[in-house]
Amino acid sequence: MRFPLETRYADYDSKGHANNAVYLTYFEMARHHAWVDRMHGDADFPFIVAEATVRYVSEAMIGQALDIEIVTSEVRTKAWVWSYVIRATDEDRVVAEGRTVQVMYDYEARRTVPIPDAVRALLVAV
Amino acid sequence: MRFPLETRYADYDSKGHANNAVYLTYFEMARHHAWVDRMHGDADFPFIVAEATVRYVSEAMIGQALDIEIVTSEVRTKAWVWSYVIRATDEDRVVAEGRTVQVMYDYEARRTVPIPDAVRALLVAV
Amino acid sequence: MRFPLETRYADYDSKGHANNAVYLTYFEMARHHAWVDRMHGDADFPFIVAEATVRYVSEAMIGQALDIEIVTSEVRTKAWVWSYVIRATDEDRVVAEGRTVQVMYDYEARRTVPIPDAVRALLVAV
Amino acid sequence: MRFPLETRYADYDSKGHANNAVYLTYFEMARHHAWVDRMHGDADFPFIVAEATVRYVSEAMIGQALDIEIVTSEVRTKAWVWSYVIRATDEDRVVAEGRTVQVMYDYEARRTVPIPDAVRALLVAV
Repeated sequence: MRFPLETRYADYDSKGHANNAVYLTYFEMARHHAWVDRMHGDADFPFIVAEATVRYVSEAMIGQALDIEIVTSEVRTKAWVWSYVIRATDEDRVVAEGRTVQVMYDYEARRTVPIPDAVRALLVAV
Repeated sequence: MRFPLETRYADYDSKGHANNAVYLTYFEMARHHAWVDRMHGDADFPFIVAEATVRYVSEAMIGQALDIEIVTSEVRTKAWVWSYVIRATDEDRVVAEGRTVQVMYDYEARRTVPIPDAVRALLVAV
Repeated sequence: MRFPLETRYADYDSKGHANNAVYLTYFEMARHHAWVDRMHGDADFPFIVAEATVRYVSEAMIGQALDIEIVTSEVRTKAWVWSYVIRATDEDRVVAEGRTVQVMYDYEARRTVPIPDAVRALLVAV
Repeated sequence: MRFPLETRYADYDSKGHANNAVYLTYFEMARHHAWVDRMHGDADFPFIVAEATVRYVSEAMIGQALDIEIVTSEVRTKAWVWSYVIRATDEDRVVAEGRTVQVMYDYEARRTVPIPDAVRALLVAV
């Protein structure tokens, strides 16, 4: 899935760059699109993020359109990996790359659980 | 109550100013100090904010120390008003002023409730 | 102008509500749409926000689609007022209302300036 | 260096957890303390962050005091690594760990530069 990122004025720091922390929010927006819009899940995610990595490749300056691509790159018993690429749309230039590890979680029982089959089938389609 | 504001790099926009929205977060930090540290209340506030106003008076540039003053300026049956002044500490220059109206709220019953007497007594001491 | 708000998971607080400060960011997003998309201005705004008010009318819970309307409600020599209404789209229910006062600003000369005629003509079309 | 983290109500998501993206902001706050308070540098950092990783170990719930430790774990010609541990203070329980790679940067010339000797000497003291 690849779609435009709606950035906000407040995302940019005093240098005019998208702040380094906001990239994890962009990843979260991609997860939301994947999970809610593509996989028809609930907006209050039933998983936890166990790990996140961002590699900042080039500058994302205020006023430049950005888009993000999210791909399921690995599926395990309870966890899966989503990989991300953020690009400056006009130049198709990579701005940042990253990955997050998600673990299926039962918030009532407060423990990790196996990925349900229905979710697994949808995950590979992202 | 008047205390130093711990600002964050991400609070500042591409002009080097504290972003206009973050002032409401500064007000919220002041409410937290008043409510949790002074009034010994729970961090998950039992009230709702019904109204907020900010008047931006002068620039808060990155690198300038800021402080905030919070005062209870009105107490009604179910609601009260907190007033705020944010200053650039070194010059004692007013950066912004504002006020918020809070209404006591029962989140389980999902309705507004009168301010308990114990809370009322503490409110006037802020 | 009225358009959908792209909310973010991080906008919601521990009660599942859009955080009170994020409404000023939603107003800022509306300004961006008005200024950049409608008025063809630069993303690095040539004006300052002098005042902002939000009245919180009803709950915006996580998972509810929101939209925002922005209207130019007053134009003076150097300043103008934008008014906002945020609604829960499905029910057309008002979630919040507010207004901000903008002042045209020359960031190099560091002083307020009159609204240029071309901007004035575009402002009344918002 | 280890010091208390001033968290904000807006940092917590609808589950009552510190949002996953805000950890990078906490790392940034630690960098600010290290760079400005310890190393006497400018608040407008003269370096870029090239990479960031967070491993989420246990829950940081609203109302729990957090602290952060930052250590310089590697110094190269132009870049260095800072490592972080965030703990729930009362239990001394690790909440998250991570690292960021910084590259010295000349924002006027728009290129990476070697770490000045004076900075290098201060870095190893963090």
